[in-house]
Amino acid sequence: MRRLISLVILVLLPAAFPVARQRVHADLILTGGTVVTMDAERRILAPGAVAIRGATIAAVGPADAVTAAWEADSVIDTSGQVVLPGLINTHGHAPMVLYRGLADDLALMEWLERYIFPAEAKTVSPAMVRTGTRLAALEMIRTGTTTFVDMYYFEEEVARAAREAGLRGVLGQTVIRFPVPDAPTPAAALERARRFLEAFAGDPLVTPAVAPHAAYTLDRDALVASRDLAAKHGAPLLIHLSETEDEVRMVREQTGQRPVAYLEALGLLGPRLLAAHAVWLDADEIALLRRHGVGVSHNPESNMKLASGVAPVPAMIEAGVAVGLGTDGAASNNDLDMFEAMRQAALLHKVHTRDPRVVPARTALAMATIDGARALGMADRIGSIEPGKLADLIVVDMTRPGQTPLYDPVSHLVYTTRGTDVRMTIVNGRVLMRDRQVLSLDETQVLREAREMASRVRAAVAAR
Amino acid sequence: MRRLISLVILVLLPAAFPVARQRVHADLILTGGTVVTMDAERRILAPGAVAIRGATIAAVGPADAVTAAWEADSVIDTSGQVVLPGLINTHGHAPMVLYRGLADDLALMEWLERYIFPAEAKTVSPAMVRTGTRLAALEMIRTGTTTFVDMYYFEEEVARAAREAGLRGVLGQTVIRFPVPDAPTPAAALERARRFLEAFAGDPLVTPAVAPHAAYTLDRDALVASRDLAAKHGAPLLIHLSETEDEVRMVREQTGQRPVAYLEALGLLGPRLLAAHAVWLDADEIALLRRHGVGVSHNPESNMKLASGVAPVPAMIEAGVAVGLGTDGAASNNDLDMFEAMRQAALLHKVHTRDPRVVPARTALAMATIDGARALGMADRIGSIEPGKLADLIVVDMTRPGQTPLYDPVSHLVYTTRGTDVRMTIVNGRVLMRDRQVLSLDETQVLREAREMASRVRAAVAAR
Repeated sequence: MRRLISLVILVLLPAAFPVARQRVHADLILTGGTVVTMDAERRILAPGAVAIRGATIAAVGPADAVTAAWEADSVIDTSGQVVLPGLINTHGHAPMVLYRGLADDLALMEWLERYIFPAEAKTVSPAMVRTGTRLAALEMIRTGTTTFVDMYYFEEEVARAAREAGLRGVLGQTVIRFPVPDAPTPAAALERARRFLEAFAGDPLVTPAVAPHAAYTLDRDALVASRDLAAKHGAPLLIHLSETEDEVRMVREQTGQRPVAYLEALGLLGPRLLAAHAVWLDADEIALLRRHGVGVSHNPESNMKLASGVAPVPAMIEAGVAVGLGTDGAASNNDLDMFEAMRQAALLHKVHTRDPRVVPARTALAMATIDGARALGMADRIGSIEPGKLADLIVVDMTRPGQTPLYDPVSHLVYTTRGTDVRMTIVNGRVLMRDRQVLSLDETQVLREAREMASRVRAAVAAR
Repeated sequence: MRRLISLVILVLLPAAFPVARQRVHADLILTGGTVVTMDAERRILAPGAVAIRGATIAAVGPADAVTAAWEADSVIDTSGQVVLPGLINTHGHAPMVLYRGLADDLALMEWLERYIFPAEAKTVSPAMVRTGTRLAALEMIRTGTTTFVDMYYFEEEVARAAREAGLRGVLGQTVIRFPVPDAPTPAAALERARRFLEAFAGDPLVTPAVAPHAAYTLDRDALVASRDLAAKHGAPLLIHLSETEDEVRMVREQTGQRPVAYLEALGLLGPRLLAAHAVWLDADEIALLRRHGVGVSHNPESNMKLASGVAPVPAMIEAGVAVGLGTDGAASNNDLDMFEAMRQAALLHKVHTRDPRVVPARTALAMATIDGARALGMADRIGSIEPGKLADLIVVDMTRPGQTPLYDPVSHLVYTTRGTDVRMTIVNGRVLMRDRQVLSLDETQVLREAREMASRVRAAVAAR
């Protein structure tokens, strides 16, 4: 087994390992399992332990050392399980879980025009966004996502539902050229975005963001205004970028430039920008993204299902671009399971490049954790299990027949683990799921409300 | 929802729906769920019911009609669940679950020479094959596979373990040029195969087969001898075919022909032959496979992980070739979950052809069921839920948050369902798993023995 048994105990808190027998108090200790830290040394502690105090990771180390130095009212045995940083889903549209499986396997325009657009026009509302986000939150908590990035309408409802569920979110109010359910014009959407940024400023879980939809669905002025609004508030900018070949063609026709150069000319490129998809990039564009510190969200399942293309992930990583993983909305995936996204990232690029060494398991796992945090500019707070970081972590079972035997936990996390193997989900020190029981949401009620909303979606599509 | 509510009740048994109130006795009735029959009309009955008598499906129809005409001691409510034909895994090496995750992400020759070959040379034995097949059977029963095709060594141990577990198998004794753990020469392997065919002739679960490894790993005489042995016993022939570009090059160098033409010249092509992988085929080769009625096993995950290439599945299906799905061995997948194979087949070919309409969910589901049966020449007995066919079926839960809402069960089966959603597995009328409890194997013991065997594998690789 390739486990790295670390001999050193790293702690940032000075009182972490007092000399005497008196142990320091933590709120929660997870001990006995394999801790996959995703720290800079990629330490794997087996058996390892993590002590949590308040919203923060207080100590990480070999199980014996941590339990000798720390005590807590709640000590959880994680034997046979892996303790992992919570997964970071860097791109999606949470409420679209309500359109999951509504229509598949169609040409893109037919899918959009016959199903998704009519459904959105007739059913997107604050109530729909609330119901959909609760359902999405349930699925994310159950499958080990602790931070999600979102671009949708009525984003304040997404934010409230995320807060209620206990999930961390980087949540962007959409700005788009067309009239949409929450704004008749880009100007109105920008005003909504401004109010949203103000309302959630400083929230411990929600990072409010501005989400200009894409270079081809906004004019120059709206893109620049989005940039300025985000800059004024120090907020992230979320955008779809070069998802399809058609998009690149349209931007060239409209602006004479390829999308990345166009966004650079408008001053949108920078560490604040998170670009979703980034499928159709040439080498110059990859270099531009790197130079400006733009983060990328790779969405392999959506890109496959919609036949968008294969993003140049190995080249982006090689160039030093921070590449995270996303699921995209459940209408084009059809789930929010980041374990599937990891597996797909590992498999897709191997066959595409004809090189089985490409995107190894350790890279796919990094994309779903620390590299996702880097893409978001949040690597100082989330993405790895290190003292002083926020206590966002998950406990994953490793004992199913399909995970047996276990030679290498990193291999299993990517190649054989399902989201349904997650047993425990903790965000900001709060236990959102324990023994597969979600504690922060009423699952029965969420599912019932989602099914009721689905009957309206069905009617909307039938009546189109 | 696209459910097709059938108005007709199809039964083959004359006494199926007697006029009077007296109901016919069955052993087991599953009622109240959505029955996805995969019959020629692809009927979906919601709510539907299936009556099982002995090893056979006695009746299928709308729930009311079946329960009015049939009674049974055991009547199981499948509300909220889908009843589906058992999945057919058309290619694998069951005992290799013991090498699951032993090494990944390496160049093919390094992976084989540093890990797989040393592990096989030092650990393959009757006990290892037995232990590995039990573990594989546990995983297959848990994830809804009811029939598996296998090519390995000591295949009689695979056969006994399959019989013990209650799984249906088309099991091939490997014939290969090199000395292997169960045979020093191809001639010895052929003799083993002959004894194996005789020992399991007429078995209700095991169809013994001859498995010449590949065109490039056997000489002409051994391929012809394999063909003759299979023909003499009316047994299937299982072979790896055109998995890698290197394989095609080697066969051309050795024989002057591409692999398919070479096998045709040797008389191996025919309905008895099941060709695994079939990645590197040109249009003429596809036509040859079709003309001779050769079945194909498509293994998308293995082909992706090993970077072998993308099989021309849409073209094969278009040409009329029967294409089933397989997982390949767990060393190159890394699981035996046919739901993942379905999802991968649906996603991979979309992005590869840049057409989102390719391999729709209904096609992926057919590949895992009725088309797999066609590829095996067993479509008269398995692969769909129809009266008179063998009672191989599974019950799949559809109520997880990640499967909510439910517009179309076929979409969900392919795009959101995991093997872990299978609740019940029935083979030949025998319930192998109920409420996720495997009844035919002692799970604790199987897992313990597998972990013990894994420590030998670890030692073998460490000592290489």
